[in-house]
Amino acid sequence: MSEMLQRLSLNQITLNKLSLAECVDACMRHNVGWIGPWRNKVAEAGLAESARMIRDSGLRVSGLCRGGYFPAATAAERAAQIDDNLRAIDEAATLGTRTLVLVCGPAPDRDIDAARGMVADGIAAVLDHARASGVRLAIEPLHPMFAADRSVICLLDEALELAQKFPAEDVGLALDAFHIWWDAYVYQKIRRCAGRILAFHVSDWAVPLPGIFAARSMMGAGVIELRRLREAVEEAGYSGPIEVEIMNEAIWNRPADSLMEEMKRTFAEHV
Amino acid sequence: MSEMLQRLSLNQITLNKLSLAECVDACMRHNVGWIGPWRNKVAEAGLAESARMIRDSGLRVSGLCRGGYFPAATAAERAAQIDDNLRAIDEAATLGTRTLVLVCGPAPDRDIDAARGMVADGIAAVLDHARASGVRLAIEPLHPMFAADRSVICLLDEALELAQKFPAEDVGLALDAFHIWWDAYVYQKIRRCAGRILAFHVSDWAVPLPGIFAARSMMGAGVIELRRLREAVEEAGYSGPIEVEIMNEAIWNRPADSLMEEMKRTFAEHV
Repeated sequence: MSEMLQRLSLNQITLNKLSLAECVDACMRHNVGWIGPWRNKVAEAGLAESARMIRDSGLRVSGLCRGGYFPAATAAERAAQIDDNLRAIDEAATLGTRTLVLVCGPAPDRDIDAARGMVADGIAAVLDHARASGVRLAIEPLHPMFAADRSVICLLDEALELAQKFPAEDVGLALDAFHIWWDAYVYQKIRRCAGRILAFHVSDWAVPLPGIFAARSMMGAGVIELRRLREAVEEAGYSGPIEVEIMNEAIWNRPADSLMEEMKRTFAEHV
Repeated sequence: MSEMLQRLSLNQITLNKLSLAECVDACMRHNVGWIGPWRNKVAEAGLAESARMIRDSGLRVSGLCRGGYFPAATAAERAAQIDDNLRAIDEAATLGTRTLVLVCGPAPDRDIDAARGMVADGIAAVLDHARASGVRLAIEPLHPMFAADRSVICLLDEALELAQKFPAEDVGLALDAFHIWWDAYVYQKIRRCAGRILAFHVSDWAVPLPGIFAARSMMGAGVIELRRLREAVEEAGYSGPIEVEIMNEAIWNRPADSLMEEMKRTFAEHV
């Protein structure tokens, strides 16, 4: 297997209709060495059982999706979100990954600047527990089309500025090609992220876009310069697993085996 | 009428099912003093007739939508696009507006940097004719969700950097709240645009988004801090007309008179 294919990780949402056990099996059948589970699927299987089946499979865990969603209208709700992030940190540690991806969450009202402050406060509140657990927090800047409903943190430079409020050994970035490809300054911004990149995700942006949330396509089916981005991320010091993370209704409806084959082929060809 | 309402301009696409003549009538009935026509509607009515009916109505033209779409796969296609922009400049002058809005266009392939170069080359190619015609080119940075199919120019700072390649009396920016609101640095970027702002457009970003192209909502129906953005644009020196530009299927299906009333009311309340 090529060195690149050894870095391929199946983000579980790419096979969203499957259970975690079925995703683990698919990885084993197709010789994919990494997996990126989602918390809702881990909860369905049970945390201890999820950790056991992953450990027994020999798969490595590239990261856990996801913590975050810090902003909320009331202090009580914000405290509940912080508690949930503490649990997510525990789950990441139990599953054997050092990386918890943070989707930072939307604002509860029109005050997006205040919401950005709540994100910084939320990260600060869970930082000690993350460090004690050996888990790093990977802030994922989301595409600006999700600014109102998923993350007030959209720009790569904004995410970096937020991460830099905290030590580099605790807080970094999850870079997803789908979220950042359109930025005219993306390559210089990636260079500035050197030492902070904790994860790299790939998919593609097809025209027309197949949806808003379920908007992503297989590598090569869209316009993103995936290889150029991957090389830039490498030059900035990241050489870890690369997750294929595709939300797409048509892809979710396909048989897992043909999808895994296509994923490996297009990953080798385009990433 | 309040000073703010005197700045209200009906961007014609907000009443997309109506002809230009019907939009002019709607403005007259509802005491709206400005209109922003679209070229396809002007072509339907005929350019000379469009200019005559607007002149006779006493309406002022805030800007013409739209030139741009410069990138293309071949030199012949790029030359054809430049010719089309020369015609758009003539149309703007004939209609009595000094402002041609540029939607810069998508890349013909995956090379988005090369496409950005074609945009700069296209603007340079039409600059002399624009100046001789008394028309200024207003580069509109589009929301990044349109980077693959409508404009490779997405960021406010990127659009400003592009405009600054040319004299400020010839090339500036059209700022649309829908396209720029999510940017964490939007207010500092607007300040840097002082002297270059040629147009300001408003609508709102509702959750969930009602579509991708037809994605916009009436002022107040979404999360955008419209007043704060309007004040920032004013502080950067822009005191001209403010176009309400809403692409939205449900709004297009509503009777024009109730829509015009709601537009005036929500504009006064939220902008």
